[in-house]
Amino acid sequence: MTIRLPQRGWLFDLDGTVYRGEALMPGADRVIAALRSDGRRVGFLSNKPLYTREDYAAKLTRLGIPTSAGDVVNSSLVLARHLAKLDPAAPVFVIGEAPLIGELRQHGFEVRSDHRVRWVVIAFDRTFDYAKLNTALQAVRQGARLIATNPDRTCPTEYGEIPDCAGMIAAVEAVTGHTVEAIVGKPSPIILEVALASLGVSAADAVIVGDRLETDITMGKRLGLATVLVLSGVTRADDLRIHAIAPDLVLGAVAELLVD
Amino acid sequence: MTIRLPQRGWLFDLDGTVYRGEALMPGADRVIAALRSDGRRVGFLSNKPLYTREDYAAKLTRLGIPTSAGDVVNSSLVLARHLAKLDPAAPVFVIGEAPLIGELRQHGFEVRSDHRVRWVVIAFDRTFDYAKLNTALQAVRQGARLIATNPDRTCPTEYGEIPDCAGMIAAVEAVTGHTVEAIVGKPSPIILEVALASLGVSAADAVIVGDRLETDITMGKRLGLATVLVLSGVTRADDLRIHAIAPDLVLGAVAELLVD
Repeated sequence: MTIRLPQRGWLFDLDGTVYRGEALMPGADRVIAALRSDGRRVGFLSNKPLYTREDYAAKLTRLGIPTSAGDVVNSSLVLARHLAKLDPAAPVFVIGEAPLIGELRQHGFEVRSDHRVRWVVIAFDRTFDYAKLNTALQAVRQGARLIATNPDRTCPTEYGEIPDCAGMIAAVEAVTGHTVEAIVGKPSPIILEVALASLGVSAADAVIVGDRLETDITMGKRLGLATVLVLSGVTRADDLRIHAIAPDLVLGAVAELLVD
Repeated sequence: MTIRLPQRGWLFDLDGTVYRGEALMPGADRVIAALRSDGRRVGFLSNKPLYTREDYAAKLTRLGIPTSAGDVVNSSLVLARHLAKLDPAAPVFVIGEAPLIGELRQHGFEVRSDHRVRWVVIAFDRTFDYAKLNTALQAVRQGARLIATNPDRTCPTEYGEIPDCAGMIAAVEAVTGHTVEAIVGKPSPIILEVALASLGVSAADAVIVGDRLETDITMGKRLGLATVLVLSGVTRADDLRIHAIAPDLVLGAVAELLVD
């Protein structure tokens, strides 16, 4: 078996690329195993701040791809690392769920439940409510800055789409009159830089494999990675005709990364 | 005592104009009494959907201005009347508090707690949460339309500003990708048209008195009412120099509407 591309670093989007819901994409385990046994570096990328890196590693391992938390980069980790550079150990208020709060605490931030903070961190939060919106407003009125995990409008689930982080960002921006300074998740270069640093490879020696033109492929091209679009997720072959974005390689699914 | 302006219809903004919090503006009771005894028609306008018209009437009466609910026009009433023209008795989902829900029920709407509706009504809602945002998304995905009470970013309270309807509107627009079709409160002409109809006077024979250039005065000028800015609320004399909007008359407070 041969791997179609020569690069040393490989970054895989998860949902729609490596698995769909609870089902592994056929052959994804063989592809990852082949890359690893060939000495390539493999990492996994997710915009979702709802689960820990350990959760993702456990899921991939359960689906047949042995993975440790260190192989996973999600928007919670990226936000914590990015903010640790900007303002280490700062007091923060979090519009977000427990896994993000845990990641921020592990990175040394003081997570507070009141508005006496230097940052309001905004994430996909299924416990978002008026009280949190008000705390964010009071914090910004006292000088706090805004940063967010991911720009997604909705999140696909097995029951359909549900509101994602864009709803929380828009509410906070509207009442404060301030704009979020950075949204670290895809398609921001920030998440890709953190992922490349984790792999220890340069952009020029890396590939990103994903199912979304506007995030995975756009972001990869902007930073100079090779880009592989798989049609096993949200993008259809027809979509390619109407988009100006051209991936370096288009495959039906990840299994086709291997040539028999 | 003489009234400075000859028009028959008088519309007064409330907070910052007639009262501030729980305190009547000095002389406001004398002004209203003088207008009424001279045969003028007087109405009160509020963008807030948090209280019923009866609540406002009771408060004004308590403060020394005898008022009935029929003298008050707030954004809940305006929304109910406007929507009753567009889609009478429609099933609606409400992001809003009990007084708005009551007003909609009184106007014959079927207020539902699920997404099987033709309209999502968005208002200033201190019980706003993720579940409501999700219901709004599901409703819009099934074809529901969006309408809102008021565009205010924040609401002043004795404890400072708190998030107002703009936060709820922004969240729903961001996750649905749809724009609210109408925001009926100030500065929309819709609220002024409802108020003028209540008074039974034409715009040309009416005055609006308020403390905000961007809402009360802008809206009044657009519809051809005479406009009176009072400096007893949010607008300072300095603000007039930097705004292109020129009220017909600027007063320190409503008491100055009377000439001794």
